[in-house]
Amino acid sequence: MQTSTDAAALAALIRHLEAMPPVAALQPRLLDWQPGRVRLGAPLQANINDKGCAFGGSLTSLMTLAGWGLVTLTLERAGLHADVFVADSQVRYLRPVFEDLDAQAQFEDPALADTLLHGLRTQGRGQAMVQAQVRLADGRSAATFSGRYVAIARTD
Amino acid sequence: MQTSTDAAALAALIRHLEAMPPVAALQPRLLDWQPGRVRLGAPLQANINDKGCAFGGSLTSLMTLAGWGLVTLTLERAGLHADVFVADSQVRYLRPVFEDLDAQAQFEDPALADTLLHGLRTQGRGQAMVQAQVRLADGRSAATFSGRYVAIARTD
Repeated sequence: MQTSTDAAALAALIRHLEAMPPVAALQPRLLDWQPGRVRLGAPLQANINDKGCAFGGSLTSLMTLAGWGLVTLTLERAGLHADVFVADSQVRYLRPVFEDLDAQAQFEDPALADTLLHGLRTQGRGQAMVQAQVRLADGRSAATFSGRYVAIARTD
Repeated sequence: MQTSTDAAALAALIRHLEAMPPVAALQPRLLDWQPGRVRLGAPLQANINDKGCAFGGSLTSLMTLAGWGLVTLTLERAGLHADVFVADSQVRYLRPVFEDLDAQAQFEDPALADTLLHGLRTQGRGQAMVQAQVRLADGRSAATFSGRYVAIARTD
């Protein structure tokens, strides 16, 4: 069930994405959000390369943003306001994507969400490992992502 | 010294980058190319995030493209025509970038260029590890990249 806090956090997330020119160029849209999972989509046409499939940088950006959205929404839902950064990431490109992009992010382990929140509450900062992937419509994985995100409490 | 082959390959590279919408959005430009090294720049304004510094996805895309350009130009210079793909990559985000982006790519080991060319000539495919980084004007590293590229000979 979505609460009004969720709705406000989602609206803020979408405004946030649209305000960044390099992100707006990807034309991302929120496909789904549940606690512990975020799915972002993007049209192939805005992200196409010379081979008629998705540009690798777009796959990585979308997975990185899905992870960033996951951490941000998890914090907002808990009433915590923080700046969220990606610290490092690994990406594997497995298959070309000749269709609209669909990237899903989740915590590497569901318990990491609690560790993240605990860090923010007790030390003003926390971190979490996030996994993401771009899935094809037939269910196969086109790219996988593993990234570490750091959150630092905002005092404003 | 640049040859006319270099000039043609550079012109093709720039056309190639500009033809991809998600790449054109980054507004990349070639700052320097020497055998074994490619430098790409991009304006901060086109790549800015909500914190007033460069979006992490733009840093990664620019480093990925610099590596792609390095492999492509190395092959073209040797008279080889191939499709070049990034297969996997690791990125570390070290410092925020509040200035125009400057990404440089080189082979992890200079001898890898010869191995790449040898693979293309004898087996129709080759691969190479590339390192890249985004450097700040003061010389410090803002992000580092390590990626594996695969090249497959084109028969056209």
